[in-house]
Amino acid sequence: MPPNILGSNFTLQSFGESHGKCIGAVIDGCPAGLMLSEEDIQPMLDLRKPGQSVITTQRKETDVVNILSGVFQGYTTGAPICMMIWNTDTDSKSYEEFKVKPRPGHADYTGFLKYGGFNDHRGSGRFSGRLTATLVMGGAIALKILNKYLNIEVASYTKSIGKIELDTKHIPFDMLMTERYTNDTRCPDANVSAKMREEILNARRDGDSLGGVIECVVQGVPAGLGEPIFESIESEISRGLFSIPAVKGVEFGSGFRGSELRGSINNDSFLINKENDTIVTKSNNSGGILGGITDGMPLVFRVAFKPAASIPKPQKTVDLKTMTESDLIVTGRHDPCVVPRAPPVVDSVVGIILLDNCMKSNLVPRVLK
Amino acid sequence: MPPNILGSNFTLQSFGESHGKCIGAVIDGCPAGLMLSEEDIQPMLDLRKPGQSVITTQRKETDVVNILSGVFQGYTTGAPICMMIWNTDTDSKSYEEFKVKPRPGHADYTGFLKYGGFNDHRGSGRFSGRLTATLVMGGAIALKILNKYLNIEVASYTKSIGKIELDTKHIPFDMLMTERYTNDTRCPDANVSAKMREEILNARRDGDSLGGVIECVVQGVPAGLGEPIFESIESEISRGLFSIPAVKGVEFGSGFRGSELRGSINNDSFLINKENDTIVTKSNNSGGILGGITDGMPLVFRVAFKPAASIPKPQKTVDLKTMTESDLIVTGRHDPCVVPRAPPVVDSVVGIILLDNCMKSNLVPRVLK
Amino acid sequence: MPPNILGSNFTLQSFGESHGKCIGAVIDGCPAGLMLSEEDIQPMLDLRKPGQSVITTQRKETDVVNILSGVFQGYTTGAPICMMIWNTDTDSKSYEEFKVKPRPGHADYTGFLKYGGFNDHRGSGRFSGRLTATLVMGGAIALKILNKYLNIEVASYTKSIGKIELDTKHIPFDMLMTERYTNDTRCPDANVSAKMREEILNARRDGDSLGGVIECVVQGVPAGLGEPIFESIESEISRGLFSIPAVKGVEFGSGFRGSELRGSINNDSFLINKENDTIVTKSNNSGGILGGITDGMPLVFRVAFKPAASIPKPQKTVDLKTMTESDLIVTGRHDPCVVPRAPPVVDSVVGIILLDNCMKSNLVPRVLK
Amino acid sequence: MPPNILGSNFTLQSFGESHGKCIGAVIDGCPAGLMLSEEDIQPMLDLRKPGQSVITTQRKETDVVNILSGVFQGYTTGAPICMMIWNTDTDSKSYEEFKVKPRPGHADYTGFLKYGGFNDHRGSGRFSGRLTATLVMGGAIALKILNKYLNIEVASYTKSIGKIELDTKHIPFDMLMTERYTNDTRCPDANVSAKMREEILNARRDGDSLGGVIECVVQGVPAGLGEPIFESIESEISRGLFSIPAVKGVEFGSGFRGSELRGSINNDSFLINKENDTIVTKSNNSGGILGGITDGMPLVFRVAFKPAASIPKPQKTVDLKTMTESDLIVTGRHDPCVVPRAPPVVDSVVGIILLDNCMKSNLVPRVLK
Repeated sequence: MPPNILGSNFTLQSFGESHGKCIGAVIDGCPAGLMLSEEDIQPMLDLRKPGQSVITTQRKETDVVNILSGVFQGYTTGAPICMMIWNTDTDSKSYEEFKVKPRPGHADYTGFLKYGGFNDHRGSGRFSGRLTATLVMGGAIALKILNKYLNIEVASYTKSIGKIELDTKHIPFDMLMTERYTNDTRCPDANVSAKMREEILNARRDGDSLGGVIECVVQGVPAGLGEPIFESIESEISRGLFSIPAVKGVEFGSGFRGSELRGSINNDSFLINKENDTIVTKSNNSGGILGGITDGMPLVFRVAFKPAASIPKPQKTVDLKTMTESDLIVTGRHDPCVVPRAPPVVDSVVGIILLDNCMKSNLVPRVLK
Repeated sequence: MPPNILGSNFTLQSFGESHGKCIGAVIDGCPAGLMLSEEDIQPMLDLRKPGQSVITTQRKETDVVNILSGVFQGYTTGAPICMMIWNTDTDSKSYEEFKVKPRPGHADYTGFLKYGGFNDHRGSGRFSGRLTATLVMGGAIALKILNKYLNIEVASYTKSIGKIELDTKHIPFDMLMTERYTNDTRCPDANVSAKMREEILNARRDGDSLGGVIECVVQGVPAGLGEPIFESIESEISRGLFSIPAVKGVEFGSGFRGSELRGSINNDSFLINKENDTIVTKSNNSGGILGGITDGMPLVFRVAFKPAASIPKPQKTVDLKTMTESDLIVTGRHDPCVVPRAPPVVDSVVGIILLDNCMKSNLVPRVLK
Repeated sequence: MPPNILGSNFTLQSFGESHGKCIGAVIDGCPAGLMLSEEDIQPMLDLRKPGQSVITTQRKETDVVNILSGVFQGYTTGAPICMMIWNTDTDSKSYEEFKVKPRPGHADYTGFLKYGGFNDHRGSGRFSGRLTATLVMGGAIALKILNKYLNIEVASYTKSIGKIELDTKHIPFDMLMTERYTNDTRCPDANVSAKMREEILNARRDGDSLGGVIECVVQGVPAGLGEPIFESIESEISRGLFSIPAVKGVEFGSGFRGSELRGSINNDSFLINKENDTIVTKSNNSGGILGGITDGMPLVFRVAFKPAASIPKPQKTVDLKTMTESDLIVTGRHDPCVVPRAPPVVDSVVGIILLDNCMKSNLVPRVLK
Repeated sequence: MPPNILGSNFTLQSFGESHGKCIGAVIDGCPAGLMLSEEDIQPMLDLRKPGQSVITTQRKETDVVNILSGVFQGYTTGAPICMMIWNTDTDSKSYEEFKVKPRPGHADYTGFLKYGGFNDHRGSGRFSGRLTATLVMGGAIALKILNKYLNIEVASYTKSIGKIELDTKHIPFDMLMTERYTNDTRCPDANVSAKMREEILNARRDGDSLGGVIECVVQGVPAGLGEPIFESIESEISRGLFSIPAVKGVEFGSGFRGSELRGSINNDSFLINKENDTIVTKSNNSGGILGGITDGMPLVFRVAFKPAASIPKPQKTVDLKTMTESDLIVTGRHDPCVVPRAPPVVDSVVGIILLDNCMKSNLVPRVLK
């Protein structure tokens, strides 16, 4: 499979560079008959775009999406859907230095090595967080199908920033879904959000940056998704998530903390839900997945984002031309913490992967009605 | 891609069931000219097999591998390599009950749903940890190529069991490599290992089980592996690891803990290694991966295993026939903790994925010499 | 995709060598719930096996298939189905010479080059027509599903041998289906078959060999199969057919002869079939495929087989060791014409490809009933 | 694999519709370091574009290609290359009728069925020959790499139109290469070309159309390409060729005619080429392929194109709304014969497939120099 394609039935081919002419995506395998226009995609792009609040980068990208193919008379045709955003607010000057003096924590060095120096380094090129907008293009379509035809709802939100963490165990799904976008940290609790916000502002004031954790809950997932052994639903989702820049950890259900528990605590007992006579589990330490297959409980997983690599503080690096050690001051407009912009991206990746897997299970007709 | 195939250039097709006639693997894409016999594979299978010590299951599977194709006059031919283990010590009686009363934490329920009740439930069928032996078959071949032709060495070992954790930061690689197999927990420190052993015996005595964390360090990884965006080396490795039963979390470098740090701490400064005039990083919080591409530092990642699901303690489940809640006592011979048997499996998955990615980078000739 | 795998949803991984321990296939993606035993596969293997009549090779391979996984209590489980034939009647002596003096028209030379001399040359190794038995293993399963659940019937038969050709235009499908196996040339007309038989015997008497053409008609194909642009149904079928040794041409409908016609003659007018008020075409020059998609008419295509390469007549070749020109007499037991053994193989390839495409169109449930 | 992607290492994702906003292609997997601009692609598009002579359609598409990503400072970066042509000269009126009254020989009917009537029917939408321009975009890049780095040259030309056929056996490769573009039929012989031209004009005068055969010779192909069993070089090339609209037959070397010969005639004897002490074959009935692997001789194959389906002559069809039989007059601007526009398309498909297979054989570095 080519390296810039995600999915196997519903696929996304990503293209474009941060400071090139455009960024875009081609969706292949989308069923025909879906009502679709730019208005289905733009709102989700707007939730991701920079410059929305004081805690994100001040770049002003408008990120206006255009659908160029695959939609006719308001409906998808079954043909590839090409979508594009033309780049506008680019300022590549500061990046010249990074080509020779790679930024610690960034892909400047590995990109240079892998592509023999031919990679477009401007604005981090293909490695830029900006490319996550192409995931959102596809994600918005996938999520529309999942919502409308399968009643699946995805809620990613900020669980922690730095050491400030929200205990989400007792927050109902509907509240996660709605509250997360009521503040600029995307944390579904106003008090904790305020602390996170302060933490970010502190870090920025110190010329530093923060990381954090996105948690995601998916409701309405049909039981039976996932294709063991090698396409377990965990394998599928993690593959997608680790494509997001800055992601360094993924865990499902009780995850790493679950590895400290005993089986009698971590196992989820089966029960009858008397309201509708269905089988449920008492707890959900498995995160809705047993043997790599969804069990009908909500999917729950967490994604660790490292602190943003571009920081104003002086750092040590190597000058690739002279092969000497060197100081580096990273200038330019950068997010002090990418986590608040990540929920639409995580939603998108999961949306694409889940739709792809619903298609493998024959749950999505080739022509929608 | 069919769901029981791992890899894209060097691929492993898994087949067989825990209590069926056999388990096996077909390797496709292996270069010609590799000296290969069962003796290259059997020792690694022996490290994984059950019944090796008092802390693992007492089943006595001999796990003798046979190479059936793809090797001629002692060398690989470039054709598919079929390998097989005939099943011998199977006792399927206790599993009849689980078909109707699914074990909490196990795939009995989801397997039943997905395959309409047609799945082979004996010994957990395809979901059995026994199937990890098929990963080891392929892993042993991949690791031989990586070791011999690319000087890559992989060391997975037990980092924690339950709450007993080894601090591995200052243990040199060679010691990790050799010490891990000197005791039955596979922990490269005798004192911590003794505590882990006791913890397992305590859990078993209580009719309970434990989980833990495997850490893996890979040395000699060439810079430039990984194919962003969607085949980042993290995506590739995590996809493979989440195929191992009981794995619920994967993190690279500083991982989840790194998400609590500031950028100035988490970023790895570049330095010149004066001994050989190469570029290295001062710390390795990235786990040897920047932008999804290896940077030449050791790969470091951790894998969370949930506590073993099969426990003797009474549990609550549902009778699928009568749709009533029911008690369940799981009998049979089960591991109280699968972690000590996992290092050869993690080594194998990583070996397969790394070889596959070395092939994508043209680092492995089609005919070996 | 690994090179020894055919299909994308219903896949066949082939393994084994002509004179190795065994030949076999692993089917991945087969739906659960199909009643299946060796008795579903053996009859089709018997139609392909050598030594059945005076016009084929006199090797006596019994070709007894064993199902080793993926079937439980008489039904498929949804897990990979491994099938195997142990090789018995092998005599590899005559092949030593071909390793140094490659046979004209054979893969001795290219196999040697590609695999650096490591390929198993005995009995032509992986290049042997014997490997088509692995296609039949998978084909028998695919055809059972197509017949039973989708009413699709596939009839391949001998259309020509050398210059003896049967005009099949006016032979009804049922007669093609039944008559083809009433004689040893697999030609559905007794008179023409007798002439073909004589032609083969003449060629053998002269120390020579013949080729021919297999025609295939598929009835009951649902309209809408095929995924343009690059997975047109012609692309899919031809990809499979060109994997059969000795195939050098494939044409659909009027094919090469159609390229000499005018559009007004070659176009198939649409009509109403008054019996059941469905749309049909008056002629079928398209072979049942328009724009790469099936139109509901019977599929019709032809496959050209070159004359068998192994002939007793003296030939010119090169000695690879001395790099000098050399004479060669090919001994051993070879078919003077492979065409009579090809119909079950062509049926199998088409069966696998059609089932795979029916799955892409959601026409096959994941669990059969 | 998604249906609009060709190749596995060097891949082409096609998008766009004949009368939509644009047509385009994304190339993924192209090595970094290739000098590339629109000037490398435009000349080949110009050879394909309509309106070039009196024997093709009179539509005036300018077909100006834009490179939108993947090229930086004049060189490929290793990132996806998105290329686009904006559609200009579209006139969709005449197509309204075909939505209800499908044209015989066209994809109107099957496209309607497969996509539930949602497909963009204007100008035949995705089924239009216009989409072959997206193949040429990728083909031009592939051919540049093959020519410059591997000395491979591809020459497709018109071998026959209707019943007018050129005997090409004794025309040297250089003449095929240069003469084919000296006339508007793309036949490398002026006299035969004149006859073909007259035949086309006659057909058009009669309100009819013609088909024909493209032959392709590839020189400089390295021995050892092709990955048997299922990725034989014939499988790979035919898969690509059958994606071209109107192709109904593909044969290699002596092909269908070879199936009438005896083995002693059809087999190609091996010889020593005394000039450079290499192994060659006396004849080339295999078309340069033995056992699915290239043998170092020129590749030779032929592609049958059916007569163009859109003809002015009255035809019979069915009205899909009223389900009654109906007369149809196809108006609009159509090619009376598509064959003269096909050579750059066949060159492109073969170029993409050969480059893809050279990459599988490690013959193309990831960074070009």
